[in-house]
Amino acid sequence: MTEASTYSFRPGSGAGSTVGVALLGMGTVGAEVMRLLEIRADEFAARIGGRLEVRGVAVGDINKPRPGVDPELLTDDAMSLVNRDDIQLVIEVIGGIDYPRELVLAALNSGKSVVTANKALIAAHADELSAAAEASGVDLFFEAAVAAAIPLVGPLRRSLAGDQVNAVMGIVNGTTNFILDAMYSRGAGYEEMLAEATELGYAEADPTADVDGFDAASKAAILASIAFHTRVSSDDVHTEGIRSITTDDIKAAKAADSTIKLLAICERLRDEQGKESVSARVYPALVPLSHPLASVSESFNAVFVEAESAGGLMFYGNGAGGGPTASAVLGDVVAVARNIVLGGRGPGESTYAELPIADFGDIETRYHVDMEVVDRVGVLAEVANAFSEHGVSLKTVRQQGLDNGARLVVITHVAKERDLEETVNRLKSLDAVNSVRSVIRMEG
Amino acid sequence: MTEASTYSFRPGSGAGSTVGVALLGMGTVGAEVMRLLEIRADEFAARIGGRLEVRGVAVGDINKPRPGVDPELLTDDAMSLVNRDDIQLVIEVIGGIDYPRELVLAALNSGKSVVTANKALIAAHADELSAAAEASGVDLFFEAAVAAAIPLVGPLRRSLAGDQVNAVMGIVNGTTNFILDAMYSRGAGYEEMLAEATELGYAEADPTADVDGFDAASKAAILASIAFHTRVSSDDVHTEGIRSITTDDIKAAKAADSTIKLLAICERLRDEQGKESVSARVYPALVPLSHPLASVSESFNAVFVEAESAGGLMFYGNGAGGGPTASAVLGDVVAVARNIVLGGRGPGESTYAELPIADFGDIETRYHVDMEVVDRVGVLAEVANAFSEHGVSLKTVRQQGLDNGARLVVITHVAKERDLEETVNRLKSLDAVNSVRSVIRMEG
Repeated sequence: MTEASTYSFRPGSGAGSTVGVALLGMGTVGAEVMRLLEIRADEFAARIGGRLEVRGVAVGDINKPRPGVDPELLTDDAMSLVNRDDIQLVIEVIGGIDYPRELVLAALNSGKSVVTANKALIAAHADELSAAAEASGVDLFFEAAVAAAIPLVGPLRRSLAGDQVNAVMGIVNGTTNFILDAMYSRGAGYEEMLAEATELGYAEADPTADVDGFDAASKAAILASIAFHTRVSSDDVHTEGIRSITTDDIKAAKAADSTIKLLAICERLRDEQGKESVSARVYPALVPLSHPLASVSESFNAVFVEAESAGGLMFYGNGAGGGPTASAVLGDVVAVARNIVLGGRGPGESTYAELPIADFGDIETRYHVDMEVVDRVGVLAEVANAFSEHGVSLKTVRQQGLDNGARLVVITHVAKERDLEETVNRLKSLDAVNSVRSVIRMEG
Repeated sequence: MTEASTYSFRPGSGAGSTVGVALLGMGTVGAEVMRLLEIRADEFAARIGGRLEVRGVAVGDINKPRPGVDPELLTDDAMSLVNRDDIQLVIEVIGGIDYPRELVLAALNSGKSVVTANKALIAAHADELSAAAEASGVDLFFEAAVAAAIPLVGPLRRSLAGDQVNAVMGIVNGTTNFILDAMYSRGAGYEEMLAEATELGYAEADPTADVDGFDAASKAAILASIAFHTRVSSDDVHTEGIRSITTDDIKAAKAADSTIKLLAICERLRDEQGKESVSARVYPALVPLSHPLASVSESFNAVFVEAESAGGLMFYGNGAGGGPTASAVLGDVVAVARNIVLGGRGPGESTYAELPIADFGDIETRYHVDMEVVDRVGVLAEVANAFSEHGVSLKTVRQQGLDNGARLVVITHVAKERDLEETVNRLKSLDAVNSVRSVIRMEG
């Protein structure tokens, strides 16, 4: 426990101040943050105008050996650490939602700034947490919550604050990108590549958050909230994962000069009356090989931003891992500590626009529909009719004989999600259609 | 002239404040900034917590018609406008160095924050201007000075403040990229493509700043200063332009599966003793077609950042133009105005590291050396000797008959600039070598 006499913090006192830091969590990211706080201490002091001093580290098991960490700093009582008077800055890298929510709320309510890498927490509770930060006049920063070290939260909140963002689209989950990339380049199946991703440490023992799209959905919610100055929570994000992607789908993608990527898409929509709404969604989609997102391989992340004045921007880099995540956490720590030492706050939450969340049925995109049909005269006309009845026009049709019937692959022009869904229901009801094997959206 | 009664600014007074803005310059960027300040006024007010009010616009000719701008706002006396008490934020988009320097200094010295898009000014006088901003406790922001709307200054200053940047490399001049891209894809000559770039408005009537690399050098100086927390001015940047690039060089690049790009390179160097120095340089270089920078076409910009923890990051987008530049200016305006309304300051200059500028002779890279040699036995050995005598080892050698002698193209392994230069001098002195047609560095 640090002596009270070393507690030299005076708010706004400028150079020479010391900022008391509590680190919550000592996993991969926490340990790396701790290590870098030590070896980069002098640099950070120069950048901040005051020194960072880690005064406590909350862990689950205080008896586990942690090389390089003063055992005196360790505690398993995170809440007491957060509530200590000599702490001004809390770094939360525990993960989970309910417990960190309590800790972060306690910190913010007692006037402490918080830096977190916790996307699930921010996506679920940004409203409550931001209100607490606002009420206390402190910072709540979370650059590491989206795509690790790739600057996205900062650029959207600050660099593009003078612009109007119309769309944010990208690959924000490295695990699924690794799996889809391997399925594409090696022709292997989903289960096999998931096992390999787990073995290599890309996927968790329970891969649900990644492969079912929940991780990407949290990030989409955060990006949409900031980009559109509107509250978007993970519940507002239409989410589909990659479990259902088969080697047949990958082959079909290749036949269409495309690959399959799990995309997070945030879009500002305008209806005929000019009324605006916001869509945030996550699903696997066909991306043409000529599109820059198609060449994002392995566990890399890439995000496109389309803004009214700036035009198209792209951000690319490592979207996960201890080092990149620690880089983002520490960038926020330096910024927040600077505000503590010199006064002032970073841009907080901004949801003044309050745009409604668009109905998923109103989303427009193109579709790749793969069917098994009966091999007889007139089938193509019946199928084409099912599309045109619902106002969905076809761009390409490809038919191929199968042992027992025929395979028909249709690519549509841009159509509304609602119309496509009704079309597929109609197709399934046709005697001429044995099965609709897959429906995959096409983007880019 | 605005009535004194509308002057409602109270520093730190929070929501409801009005920030008085002076706009210096009404060219392409200035006019777009003015237009957007008007149509996005409500959005900006919500993001800032107070309204921006343009209280004066300094122009060269007040009699020129400027649609949409209240003639009462126009003045040709920029200095008097800057000195008005009802101005808190000055936007400088005049260009040039000496005159804007006086205006920006006057603004900073009288406690006004400044947003500028002027790369030449910042690259030449960042030390003096930053000191003035620091002394007055105000902001000096210049995101638009590098690669327009692509967020680079912000990410380097803030997002990566917790990391150690080791290199920044990229294409930061759209005009030269347009010319080189056209020479590559159409096989046309430099003069022809420069004429086309001028006609299309990509190049100025006097293209010196672009084609001789000075514009890129200003940006390299700014990026290196921020990335390495060290004063780097444009005089410190070794600068070579693209005037000497011939169609033969482009052909040779193609033969080496490469293209030629004008690169700005900022690098942290470490000698054997671990002593660090900084290099900033601009020159045309061969870039392998497989490298992402090779596919940056037309007038786009792309910048790679290599940081210790974050790994490699890439930023891509429109690096010039009225809209993208206005986007960057207004992002800074919103941030600065927010600081004026709520108190606090953004990260200012940080040159604590004070790393020395590396001698250009100590730089290491690979080289593509194109020679005309005499066609006789023993020439290759003589040439190879000239390289090995200076410690430069060869990766590939390609010989081809010419009408009168032979052409010899050599690609080296990584070598020091100094050693390569001595090698070339030696080559030129050999009877066996008729001429050294070109020496082009290879990067990426």
